[in-house]
Amino acid sequence: MNTSPNSPDKPVVRLKPKVNARALRHGAPWVFDSDIVTDRRTKALAPGTLAILEDAERKPLGLVGFNPASRIMARMLDRNPDAVLDADWFAARFRRALALRENLFDAPFYRLIHAEADGFPGVIIDRFGDTAVVQPNAAWADTLMEPLVQALREVTGVTTVIKNASGRARGLEGLDDETGLVCGTLPDAPIPVPMNGATYMADLVGGQKTGLFYDQRPNHAFAAGLARGAEVLDVFSHVGGFAMAALAGGATSALAVDGSAAALELAQAGAAQSGFADRFSTRSGDAFDVLTKLGEEDARFDLVICDPPAFAPAKPALEAGLRAYERVARLSAGLVREGGFLVLCSCSHAAGLDKFRTACARGIGRAGRTGRLIHTGFAGPDHPQMPQLAESGYLKALFFAL
Amino acid sequence: MNTSPNSPDKPVVRLKPKVNARALRHGAPWVFDSDIVTDRRTKALAPGTLAILEDAERKPLGLVGFNPASRIMARMLDRNPDAVLDADWFAARFRRALALRENLFDAPFYRLIHAEADGFPGVIIDRFGDTAVVQPNAAWADTLMEPLVQALREVTGVTTVIKNASGRARGLEGLDDETGLVCGTLPDAPIPVPMNGATYMADLVGGQKTGLFYDQRPNHAFAAGLARGAEVLDVFSHVGGFAMAALAGGATSALAVDGSAAALELAQAGAAQSGFADRFSTRSGDAFDVLTKLGEEDARFDLVICDPPAFAPAKPALEAGLRAYERVARLSAGLVREGGFLVLCSCSHAAGLDKFRTACARGIGRAGRTGRLIHTGFAGPDHPQMPQLAESGYLKALFFAL
Repeated sequence: MNTSPNSPDKPVVRLKPKVNARALRHGAPWVFDSDIVTDRRTKALAPGTLAILEDAERKPLGLVGFNPASRIMARMLDRNPDAVLDADWFAARFRRALALRENLFDAPFYRLIHAEADGFPGVIIDRFGDTAVVQPNAAWADTLMEPLVQALREVTGVTTVIKNASGRARGLEGLDDETGLVCGTLPDAPIPVPMNGATYMADLVGGQKTGLFYDQRPNHAFAAGLARGAEVLDVFSHVGGFAMAALAGGATSALAVDGSAAALELAQAGAAQSGFADRFSTRSGDAFDVLTKLGEEDARFDLVICDPPAFAPAKPALEAGLRAYERVARLSAGLVREGGFLVLCSCSHAAGLDKFRTACARGIGRAGRTGRLIHTGFAGPDHPQMPQLAESGYLKALFFAL
Repeated sequence: MNTSPNSPDKPVVRLKPKVNARALRHGAPWVFDSDIVTDRRTKALAPGTLAILEDAERKPLGLVGFNPASRIMARMLDRNPDAVLDADWFAARFRRALALRENLFDAPFYRLIHAEADGFPGVIIDRFGDTAVVQPNAAWADTLMEPLVQALREVTGVTTVIKNASGRARGLEGLDDETGLVCGTLPDAPIPVPMNGATYMADLVGGQKTGLFYDQRPNHAFAAGLARGAEVLDVFSHVGGFAMAALAGGATSALAVDGSAAALELAQAGAAQSGFADRFSTRSGDAFDVLTKLGEEDARFDLVICDPPAFAPAKPALEAGLRAYERVARLSAGLVREGGFLVLCSCSHAAGLDKFRTACARGIGRAGRTGRLIHTGFAGPDHPQMPQLAESGYLKALFFAL
């Protein structure tokens, strides 16, 4: 075990004079570079160093993970400045996170750790039965992978742990992108994942991010509740998230559209596994092109879902992103039968709920349709938020009756 | 049938110069008094008069329900200025609303008409099997109750229709508060309503508003999913909304607290009807007092729900309302076991989601606890919204893991 980060002589970092420590005392998890006194000494600290954060009056605020290379220069790890981040420390937090998931789900397929709200700043862990995929997207966790993984195995019983280092956030932390096996055996085939009455295939090695997104689970379920007897179009389908849930909910057919042929192959495999193969079809290609083409073909569906990638991941892209969402809404609304449903999703941090809803309503209006909003969904409960970090509510799903 | 509102020579009302009609052309449903030319003639129009709305250039925008006594002086009823609001007109809108509900629910217990988004500006209709309760909270509907009720009966098959005139909004419209039977037979006992695996008792004559609120249905369901094996406290319980759903979800006990002994009696009757009587108890009294008392008794629960009345119904009450929500959060958070859940609801129009969440987080913090937000719920899908009327998203339910 790499004990150096837990050395008893921890460096001290300090808030600038006049920076109010109140929010930190009340649970705020982040300190930005602009609020910390930086000198040659602090700048020389290795990324991921555990340090004691003090206020300007030298009162200790807690133990932080420090990274001079990151805009989020300090992440609060423990309000106790003397905490030791060994396997026991991690195990206590894993037990709390696991208890919540076991309360929520019948099977061990879920996001186990959702960063700050689960007490693991910058760390994402998704569980697929006996396999866990860890995204240590902050330097402190990268340096403490050994006790973290030890505790993860002890508390949950997972046998295979994969480190996924492809997250965009790692670049902001100055971390490498070396994905690989930490322990156990790399799965040699996609793992079947049961959700909402369907079986999804998660490719944990070749796939996008962690191979499967759990965040849309409750929105899949809500869509499934509208799908009985419906012809369904699932655009930006990835491995068939909405399409398969809709088929489990009684849809007569589902067409999945995605730019990735590999994702659609996994969707086909999931449909076969679920017994839906005869009701499921795919179309590979640019989603805007396919939407336009379907419009020209006068295709119509009872339920259309569009779950695009983040068009507005950050503020500079907001206006262009909102225009893209409006375009998706316009193109897809025209494909919905009278009395049908349109589901529009955004996973853009920068596009807040109000702005996204307005863009969608405008797009629906431009298609000559009117929509009643019947449901607004967010990420599932295995993606808890700290109330202080409103921005972590990135995922929105708007359900319109047209 | 009172045909006068549909007379062929409808009065014309006109937007003031420079008022932009664009929003109205794109589906905005309301025109405020400040945007309409008012002269002796328009002021003399009877509340509820059907009128043709024109823009400042005298181009017709549609048919409106006009009420010189209301701040919402005109409500858009039909973009076709020549529409005739007879039973056929109402029937077409009822059919559309009914199709949505039949898609959503297995049993005929739901909000059938949710005002603007269902094409009935200012009108609420709740359905309890063969009985419908109509709240005509806008003058135009008050004058057209006859064709409205005729169409309601024809389309849905309900046999009893009750007019509920107790809504606060009727006062703003200058309407009477005469509640009564429109047709059929007044139910002589509370009506059993199946929801989320429990049976609720709705008193449609003596009860609060329409005797039962359907809006919390999906939030009851989410709470029920957290309730297996839990001891549950349901504060501001009314007829036992959350408590009964939790018992259906496997709670070992539920205590319902409310200021109204009559509501708690209905809750007891529902618990008996559902077979939950041995796990259900009630405590009548001021909720703040009971919360304080339970704290002094060191009572602890696994799941605590607080669904108070609107503390901030309108802007002047916002600050005091937020303080009241914070107090509810503080008093209730202290009653939740470690690892348990706290559900905090607001039905205040004026307290937006962000402000309400902040007040709740502050209250939880003041109780010395930290909460992870696992779910944000709104009113159920039988309460559709027009995307333009964001404010109609009045109901919020925040689910915290403590």
